[in-house]
Amino acid sequence: MGFGRKNYNASTRFIRSDGGVNIKRTGLNRLDNLDIYHWLITTSLTRLFFVILCSYTIANLIFAFIYYSLGVENFGGLNTDSELDSFLSLFFFSAQTLTTVGYGHVYPLSHYVSLVSATESLLGLLGFALATGVLYGRFSRPKADLLYSKNILIAPYEGAFGLMFRIANKKQYELIESEASVTISYTDPVTKKREFDQLKLEINRINYLALSWTIVHPLNDESPLKGWTQKDFQETDIEIMILMKAINDTFSQTVYSRHSYKSEDIIEHAKFVPLRQEIKEDGRIVVSVNEIHQFTKTEPQA
Amino acid sequence: MGFGRKNYNASTRFIRSDGGVNIKRTGLNRLDNLDIYHWLITTSLTRLFFVILCSYTIANLIFAFIYYSLGVENFGGLNTDSELDSFLSLFFFSAQTLTTVGYGHVYPLSHYVSLVSATESLLGLLGFALATGVLYGRFSRPKADLLYSKNILIAPYEGAFGLMFRIANKKQYELIESEASVTISYTDPVTKKREFDQLKLEINRINYLALSWTIVHPLNDESPLKGWTQKDFQETDIEIMILMKAINDTFSQTVYSRHSYKSEDIIEHAKFVPLRQEIKEDGRIVVSVNEIHQFTKTEPQA
Amino acid sequence: MGFGRKNYNASTRFIRSDGGVNIKRTGLNRLDNLDIYHWLITTSLTRLFFVILCSYTIANLIFAFIYYSLGVENFGGLNTDSELDSFLSLFFFSAQTLTTVGYGHVYPLSHYVSLVSATESLLGLLGFALATGVLYGRFSRPKADLLYSKNILIAPYEGAFGLMFRIANKKQYELIESEASVTISYTDPVTKKREFDQLKLEINRINYLALSWTIVHPLNDESPLKGWTQKDFQETDIEIMILMKAINDTFSQTVYSRHSYKSEDIIEHAKFVPLRQEIKEDGRIVVSVNEIHQFTKTEPQA
Amino acid sequence: MGFGRKNYNASTRFIRSDGGVNIKRTGLNRLDNLDIYHWLITTSLTRLFFVILCSYTIANLIFAFIYYSLGVENFGGLNTDSELDSFLSLFFFSAQTLTTVGYGHVYPLSHYVSLVSATESLLGLLGFALATGVLYGRFSRPKADLLYSKNILIAPYEGAFGLMFRIANKKQYELIESEASVTISYTDPVTKKREFDQLKLEINRINYLALSWTIVHPLNDESPLKGWTQKDFQETDIEIMILMKAINDTFSQTVYSRHSYKSEDIIEHAKFVPLRQEIKEDGRIVVSVNEIHQFTKTEPQA
Repeated sequence: MGFGRKNYNASTRFIRSDGGVNIKRTGLNRLDNLDIYHWLITTSLTRLFFVILCSYTIANLIFAFIYYSLGVENFGGLNTDSELDSFLSLFFFSAQTLTTVGYGHVYPLSHYVSLVSATESLLGLLGFALATGVLYGRFSRPKADLLYSKNILIAPYEGAFGLMFRIANKKQYELIESEASVTISYTDPVTKKREFDQLKLEINRINYLALSWTIVHPLNDESPLKGWTQKDFQETDIEIMILMKAINDTFSQTVYSRHSYKSEDIIEHAKFVPLRQEIKEDGRIVVSVNEIHQFTKTEPQA
Repeated sequence: MGFGRKNYNASTRFIRSDGGVNIKRTGLNRLDNLDIYHWLITTSLTRLFFVILCSYTIANLIFAFIYYSLGVENFGGLNTDSELDSFLSLFFFSAQTLTTVGYGHVYPLSHYVSLVSATESLLGLLGFALATGVLYGRFSRPKADLLYSKNILIAPYEGAFGLMFRIANKKQYELIESEASVTISYTDPVTKKREFDQLKLEINRINYLALSWTIVHPLNDESPLKGWTQKDFQETDIEIMILMKAINDTFSQTVYSRHSYKSEDIIEHAKFVPLRQEIKEDGRIVVSVNEIHQFTKTEPQA
Repeated sequence: MGFGRKNYNASTRFIRSDGGVNIKRTGLNRLDNLDIYHWLITTSLTRLFFVILCSYTIANLIFAFIYYSLGVENFGGLNTDSELDSFLSLFFFSAQTLTTVGYGHVYPLSHYVSLVSATESLLGLLGFALATGVLYGRFSRPKADLLYSKNILIAPYEGAFGLMFRIANKKQYELIESEASVTISYTDPVTKKREFDQLKLEINRINYLALSWTIVHPLNDESPLKGWTQKDFQETDIEIMILMKAINDTFSQTVYSRHSYKSEDIIEHAKFVPLRQEIKEDGRIVVSVNEIHQFTKTEPQA
Repeated sequence: MGFGRKNYNASTRFIRSDGGVNIKRTGLNRLDNLDIYHWLITTSLTRLFFVILCSYTIANLIFAFIYYSLGVENFGGLNTDSELDSFLSLFFFSAQTLTTVGYGHVYPLSHYVSLVSATESLLGLLGFALATGVLYGRFSRPKADLLYSKNILIAPYEGAFGLMFRIANKKQYELIESEASVTISYTDPVTKKREFDQLKLEINRINYLALSWTIVHPLNDESPLKGWTQKDFQETDIEIMILMKAINDTFSQTVYSRHSYKSEDIIEHAKFVPLRQEIKEDGRIVVSVNEIHQFTKTEPQA
């Protein structure tokens, strides 16, 4: 599995509920550990915009200082009413150069200033090339936006029981060739070591993820969880880790999604309520995907 | 299959004839359901152009209002013959700033205006970066442009019958390693529930999709459709769903295509007319792909 | 195979020696058949540059006409010495607007002209966004630049004979997980129909394509070509079609390459000369890949 | 394997320790061998920046010469104090045109100059489009940043011995579905020819590469290396070549990594020290990946 077998306290989980892997790697020098592109692609839009705005302001401040130190007499059309006016005018001249807007009401008179502004406009274009790449990288990044049922149920299944959870596609585009892989991690009551096991699924691949998909692990003789009760799940501090793989056929992209359930998410003697489907007049089938969380309690079998 | 088993009325189909999946998902908050990039990539070019034009106009209107509220006296070279002239001049100053054309016959006099225009030109560049990404995303999107025969035939095949349809590549680039997968959905006459079945194909993979490919499901003992007549297909409200997968070797992209036939598309006692091939003087083979729809009626076998 | 079985004249081949598939599809309306992006990506650089230059000139001519028809009195700073001067000045004003260079020595005086130039600069940005996408698409396109031996030999192999050709990687980047697939097409002497067969290879996959790879089809009892002589290859008008697949690990791209040999490329009683390898002082291994064409004649076995 | 079987001197290795394949291909004409895009993507950032700066300067020098030869009288607003001043002003006018900043304090007076500057600004945009593509291509290139243990150990394993090395992910993003493939190359002491062999691994695929992965080749009866001592490894000049494949699930990219060990990297009678794992208060697991190099000596078994 690539996870360690040390026994953690109950609050620790390998996969966070948002799908992230709960591990931080250290011990490398900062440069090895740093991946700016990865950060720019995965950070929030707000933060990205803040970073762009700051870089823009700082770049303009630096160039304004350079222009200022070269002397205001090297500029035509400059507002030189005060030192501050001069500096601010140069700041905005820098902004007009960096973005290549170049109104030209302020313009370089000396070759030194021209050299700096020629460099600045090149840097502006390169910086903008970077921004284009980052924005495209963010938007075109393969994403599986799956909705997982809040709970994982122990439900009646083929005369016995099955461990069941449901997923649905949150987006309007289609996911095809979906595959599920379910792994459990639990503390062996005897050795106190962390054990890992892959759970066998009734079906682990479907052609379309059109409505919803109930993924079932039959609790039969082959299952390591056969006969377990809520108490067993709690005491072994079980973590049920899901790895989904599917193809977004709009972009032919393979997408991945992770999720994890802990013992408190397990409901015994319950079964999922089938999703209601409404047929519109134009023949379209409408489903309400947030119904995948709904379940009803069943009678405990004697 | 990922589709429900509820029995729909005859007009409903899972796959629309244009290949789209006939399902709408609701019940999420709007933000979850929204995927702007997906929309921008898949909408028509006309709509996209309209959206770009509107955004451009609205952005310029907003900035023109900001400039106007800062006061026309903060601008050099402005046409201030009337209130409207002032506003329109500021609107076009905004356009020149947003696109970074920056003629400079109108230019900022005060630092406040300079600040707004520096922000506007940055936003202009970012917006343009987005447009670049969207246009590239649209053009580079993997597409399989397949032509499906209008009808699906029950044709003589190896002494018995086979269910057959034909596909051809509409484009001049090549598709290799093509794979077909055919699923049927029908209403069980007894249970009135929707049943799903995967049809076995004579060959489900070919190396080149050079001319055309006739995909054959033998109606032998293994087939769930053995002995069915037009009446059976109609009464069970059959839907024959096709999922094609191929590789466009110009871009090494895996492409997908979906299609679906209903009972009215099924023709009994018919067989496809082979595609005519013309050999040009330079050795090139010319085929007319729209001939894949052509079939002739055969004698009903006694 | 996706090719027809009609018998062609000897000059026809399915795969051209440059790897292109020798088929032209017609019969669709032009729009279906057209794939501008595909053309822009695969055409020569010279043609692409010509197309860009023409589009640029035509766009400027159109806008110059619009500006001219709006009246030269709507422009400031215009050279109006003659009608031609006016028009040319407007042509270059258009160019300065389209590229967003916007010197501003010529500038719009009326709102109508401002409106047109605001539209033009937007179109300029969009056109440039397209060019960015096309250039990136061209450069990032997966390419396998393989060198195929000029001839395919019938060489001694494990006490009998084998059909052999060699390939090498032309570029300095590495190709890994290379796979070969060899298909023959020949005219059956009896039925006069075109037959297709997949040839079994000794090894059809290698981890690295570091030096060269000799792909061998053993001419044993399983081979449809066992005992064939040059005369058989000629009379059946054989075409040996190669499809190579590999991964360029710099870009993790799967790349494809096609090649085809005809009977005149087949050499009997010959074997390939092993590639010379030179070890540089720094331990680097140097090979001269164009030696893959070299073979020596062997004694015909009695 | 795609490598030759000639026997090299001990200093030669197929895979360099940085993962590069140690082969140079020659014998083609320069153009075939050249792959500018590949170079631009894989060269260092410093070199790339230098190339961009040089191209920018040279392009401006060329256009300055063209403008100068057309005559300084064709420009408005030019500093013509001296020949040098004129030339430098034209150099910076060129820079303002190429980057489309276009201040406009220097501007074309004649149509010839306008024509050249219209061409220059088009070239500027195209060059910038190229730069955008190159920067995006560099950042989005699939990369596996794996840390390999410095040594490969012969450690106790299931009552016997195993050849073991460890890998860890250097980056904060996750690698899933990791696969290892280990090949050895050694000089046969009898034939003096280079032999190649694929080593069987205990497990060759794991779901997550979360902490670290110890890849084990059991030195059992099936192993070609059973019973080998340090002396054997040295005398046969062994090279142990690793090919790792994994999926970066942030970008759904398949990434590859290569590594190679020589006899001096093999340590007998040693075993790896398990990685320490620290549980933070928020439940996060912290590992120090550079501990993967650590091993302890074991008692030689009698």
